[in-house]
Amino acid sequence: MLALRVDKKRLSVRNITKPLADNEALIRVVLSGICNTDLEIARGYAGFKGTIGHEFVGVVDESPDSPLNGQRVVGEINAGCGKCELCRAGDPRHCPKRTVLGIVGRDGAHAEFLRLPVENLLQVPDKLIDEHAVFTEPLSAACGILERASINKTDHVAVIGDGKLGLLCAQVVALTGANLLLIGKHSSKLRIAERRGIETSTAKQAAKRKRTFDVVVEASGAAPGFELALNLLRPKGKLVLKSTFNETTEIDAARIVVDEISIVGSRCGRFKPAVDLLAKGAIDVDSLISEEYPLAQGVHAMQRAGTRGILKVLLRP
Amino acid sequence: MLALRVDKKRLSVRNITKPLADNEALIRVVLSGICNTDLEIARGYAGFKGTIGHEFVGVVDESPDSPLNGQRVVGEINAGCGKCELCRAGDPRHCPKRTVLGIVGRDGAHAEFLRLPVENLLQVPDKLIDEHAVFTEPLSAACGILERASINKTDHVAVIGDGKLGLLCAQVVALTGANLLLIGKHSSKLRIAERRGIETSTAKQAAKRKRTFDVVVEASGAAPGFELALNLLRPKGKLVLKSTFNETTEIDAARIVVDEISIVGSRCGRFKPAVDLLAKGAIDVDSLISEEYPLAQGVHAMQRAGTRGILKVLLRP
Repeated sequence: MLALRVDKKRLSVRNITKPLADNEALIRVVLSGICNTDLEIARGYAGFKGTIGHEFVGVVDESPDSPLNGQRVVGEINAGCGKCELCRAGDPRHCPKRTVLGIVGRDGAHAEFLRLPVENLLQVPDKLIDEHAVFTEPLSAACGILERASINKTDHVAVIGDGKLGLLCAQVVALTGANLLLIGKHSSKLRIAERRGIETSTAKQAAKRKRTFDVVVEASGAAPGFELALNLLRPKGKLVLKSTFNETTEIDAARIVVDEISIVGSRCGRFKPAVDLLAKGAIDVDSLISEEYPLAQGVHAMQRAGTRGILKVLLRP
Repeated sequence: MLALRVDKKRLSVRNITKPLADNEALIRVVLSGICNTDLEIARGYAGFKGTIGHEFVGVVDESPDSPLNGQRVVGEINAGCGKCELCRAGDPRHCPKRTVLGIVGRDGAHAEFLRLPVENLLQVPDKLIDEHAVFTEPLSAACGILERASINKTDHVAVIGDGKLGLLCAQVVALTGANLLLIGKHSSKLRIAERRGIETSTAKQAAKRKRTFDVVVEASGAAPGFELALNLLRPKGKLVLKSTFNETTEIDAARIVVDEISIVGSRCGRFKPAVDLLAKGAIDVDSLISEEYPLAQGVHAMQRAGTRGILKVLLRP
């Protein structure tokens, strides 16, 4: 089968052996999405070698004794050991022995087939089309903000970053009814949020509102975003770090102490709330799709995904 | 009156005009304590010019219409504008227009007299001696940990730093019944905690227990302490930043996101819990007193306070 592989920072689409289901489910991938993390992995982040990709919708091809056989599914990307305290508590996202689809020790979704534990799978409602369902993973990451910060209607919230992740984060925060500002650089991307009634601004404009935000979500993945976030927060405010930075970042620790700021990291979220939001049509993901390519053109698609102004690029095996 | 003053990084004890009570209380200082923040201010931190010092116990000399007249008091160091939202909610510690005793826009405690708003003062119980009461401010800062992180008996908590602040933080955390480890460099200082039944170790030994702590309190004020703290935390663990670093610090932001760590800054705490603990004899502060000098020898006392191995240095006007 075809798969988009990375090995020592070299990307290629190759013909590899189709995996066996073994004790897991074998899924035929219908559509996969390229995430910025894929781009970072291709640059060497996490030292991963194998098939990349972790956003997908597919059909269960083989899953012994499972009612999901033949069903359309999405899948949580962390596969825990099943034995440790965290796994037994039902949250394998932080299992120290976990594999992560297309990121840590497990071949990923930019392929004709992938494997995942059956318990990771979630059936996709009939009315949810593939092009929307493929956003379940990044949208669940955006929903993860609300697992880490309680946001209410009276809060002033800023989201920094108008990329794919920032636009999803802004739409999720908007649903809370909070006073929201999306901060970005690209007028065409900001317009997507504006069409949903979300206020937007440039970083320069936003800097005038320093020390006024209760919560700031950093989704730009760049060091200046981190600094701006600290400047925008009121004393005792909360910074939600959403992006994985592939470098160390300088922070003003005295500012954190004196203003008693909280910084919370946020990675993956749960899939169910994201599927529900997509099924309800509560999130505009159509505007986030820039291009679609056949999997065979995966290397080109990755280049496109890294091009300025491009949002989500999809791959179809 | 005599006062220990700083001006452009120059320290001196000078004879200055005794302040008037005006609308505030005038307090005759009985004893003041030198904090590491005083040492940082003398090096230029916060750009302060005037009388330094913010830890004191004194007697109210003049306070129109107040029952505190003639009483022994300690005083919260933040004086808010009284009008903003934070002040009206009863917490002037983050008022943007606040002055801070001996730190921001207000002469401090290493002097014969000081001024503070009457509402900042707290009467000292008769049984609490001056040498213990003078620890109210730093102990309240240590108690502030519990305002920022809920710690329970089953938690594993590490405190990094065996200086004055670290030893107070460790003693406060010990009272929660949590599994506590104090990490430091100086066997003589660690022994103070060991006598209270607190387990101690060096940073090197502690590093073997990485990713096992629920909460880590950074009270060393040094960049390696910050790095060690992140390494010791389990996924979803909480880092309480207690020290004001006088520099930017490099952090591994990806680690915070992937492991969904929380970092919370903690500065001042409320005085009442600290006074109650001191009055109950629940905290060993005697072991923390290294030396006492007359205020006139304040410059020498500051040098001593900055000397390796020295804990609290007190000044008596």
